[in-house]
Amino acid sequence: MTDLAALANHQIRLAARPNGLPTRNDWNFTTEPVAPPVDGGIVVKVLSLSLDPAMRGWMNEGKSYIPPVGIGEVMRASGVAKVIASATPAFSVGDLVSCGPGVQEYAALAPNDLQRGGVFKIDLAAGSVTQWLNVLGMPGMTGYFGLLDVGQPQPGQTVVVSGAAGAVGQTVGQLARIKGCRAVGIAGGPEKCAWVVDELGFDACIDYKTGDVKAGLKQHCPQGVDVYFDNVGGDILEAVLTRLARKARIVICGAISQYNNTTPVQGPANYLSLLVNRARMEGMVVFDYADRYPIAVKELAGYLKDGRMKSKEDVVVGLETFPESLLKLFSGANFGKLVLEVAGA
Amino acid sequence: MTDLAALANHQIRLAARPNGLPTRNDWNFTTEPVAPPVDGGIVVKVLSLSLDPAMRGWMNEGKSYIPPVGIGEVMRASGVAKVIASATPAFSVGDLVSCGPGVQEYAALAPNDLQRGGVFKIDLAAGSVTQWLNVLGMPGMTGYFGLLDVGQPQPGQTVVVSGAAGAVGQTVGQLARIKGCRAVGIAGGPEKCAWVVDELGFDACIDYKTGDVKAGLKQHCPQGVDVYFDNVGGDILEAVLTRLARKARIVICGAISQYNNTTPVQGPANYLSLLVNRARMEGMVVFDYADRYPIAVKELAGYLKDGRMKSKEDVVVGLETFPESLLKLFSGANFGKLVLEVAGA
Repeated sequence: MTDLAALANHQIRLAARPNGLPTRNDWNFTTEPVAPPVDGGIVVKVLSLSLDPAMRGWMNEGKSYIPPVGIGEVMRASGVAKVIASATPAFSVGDLVSCGPGVQEYAALAPNDLQRGGVFKIDLAAGSVTQWLNVLGMPGMTGYFGLLDVGQPQPGQTVVVSGAAGAVGQTVGQLARIKGCRAVGIAGGPEKCAWVVDELGFDACIDYKTGDVKAGLKQHCPQGVDVYFDNVGGDILEAVLTRLARKARIVICGAISQYNNTTPVQGPANYLSLLVNRARMEGMVVFDYADRYPIAVKELAGYLKDGRMKSKEDVVVGLETFPESLLKLFSGANFGKLVLEVAGA
Repeated sequence: MTDLAALANHQIRLAARPNGLPTRNDWNFTTEPVAPPVDGGIVVKVLSLSLDPAMRGWMNEGKSYIPPVGIGEVMRASGVAKVIASATPAFSVGDLVSCGPGVQEYAALAPNDLQRGGVFKIDLAAGSVTQWLNVLGMPGMTGYFGLLDVGQPQPGQTVVVSGAAGAVGQTVGQLARIKGCRAVGIAGGPEKCAWVVDELGFDACIDYKTGDVKAGLKQHCPQGVDVYFDNVGGDILEAVLTRLARKARIVICGAISQYNNTTPVQGPANYLSLLVNRARMEGMVVFDYADRYPIAVKELAGYLKDGRMKSKEDVVVGLETFPESLLKLFSGANFGKLVLEVAGA
């Protein structure tokens, strides 16, 4: 067993609620000793953390689908970690687990944290550590349940997804293809678009940075858009609303274009297209599907194994890079699921 | 049989596409002779016309759920009329029918117009002529299918409806109560609000003209809003979005606050509340439910008969008042379903 007393835990805490893009001043860097596990709990060493657009929302005050991170608290993050001390028969030292350790090097997880699938062992035969933060992790679960449960695509229908080269988008588009749909991505830049089509097998990908999204949708969705999986909001949501098919479903998963606004959110002025097309727009939060994660993981791991699904992770290294690494999500600089490697396995 | 040759048909035609509120210059007044019915068709004398917010949309160019009224065409309108000449065994002279005669005194309806429930006989034992344009007509059908099929209210849930004193709103709120829901209206002015509560039996009504809609929703919907039936859009939709219950359904029926905009439609900036609350916003068009109108008419007529449902119509008289009468809808000056009486029965 690791000598916990010999360890120093470097942490990143929320220092202030950002106005617009978070800056270094919004974070505090602290170092604490690592205590032994409480009865029924474990202590883990963090290997990799998932950097997600949703993190920006957690930094804001106010009611949302989960409480905000408090000022002075270690920033919330999910990740993959290794158990280094255990006071419960449920986990053994050396187990690799998916958990929510926060942005720090070590985390003490109490019995309460271990409830309801909050911590579970992962199998590297099903996917790599980074894939367990991507297709087999929260983004994959989000794409799986958002597309299938909320979007309800039927074979032959057209599924459009924004942030197509991102973590959720890559799962959504590939899964749509597997389910017999036409998949059209929207992504930023020719490199991402080419990858989405050539590597992931989407039918088309529209470059929102250089192209006209409306024209691209008209070209690539001649029968209209049956399912739009929205990760970005703003002008792209607006454009898709003009191309809906009858009875279309829009899955509201996120709105990354609006997260760092210092002005009010841009509401979709074309929302009356929902009326004209008898369409619906529905929000989803992945946590609601926690009971069914194992089913989705099993299915998606099968696709990774048989090659029908690929994944791409953009790995940045070093806990201390967190403040700047997070910003890659908002400029679109990441290419694939953004993962922060804190320590090697 | 009426001597058709002796009749002069006064008509109101769309002269121009309005910019903002329609003015008298947007209309042409014409007079034509009345021709005998074509083989398989009928000629009707218009008794009363339904004036609807949707008419404003029909005057605009561009793709919508039905084609726009063409420049020079008689303005589209539904109404109740009496058959004065028939060349089909399906209808006899003297029959009272619900139909789409347009804004004119007489209408020749061809076999094609009679298809798919486009013209049907009405029974004055079930409701008056004006009720056949209200609860038993398009507004009633809209409220019935929008609330029950799209809104899917469950007993004990809270249903909020805007335009509560209007044609659709009165049906929605009373039907919600009958189905075991709490009904909260939003209407303009103390007189309408008092009527909605005292006469129609809504649990509460918020006066958007003098009150704070958000505060009213907080007071009257302590458990949040489960179903919001939206007839108005704009700031009221925005306010309701901040008070949604988990898994809420917003029925997008109309957006009267936006119909005469000369600026872009106000998109709902609070739409991410759909995500936080796993809620959905869905558009509906009443024509989709035409096959089931008879079921709804029978049920609603039963409620009118046993006194569980009341109705109020605001009757204006004279075809020539049409241009100004229509505007009452947009200033909220009408109190109840707005009906234009063209001729007595």
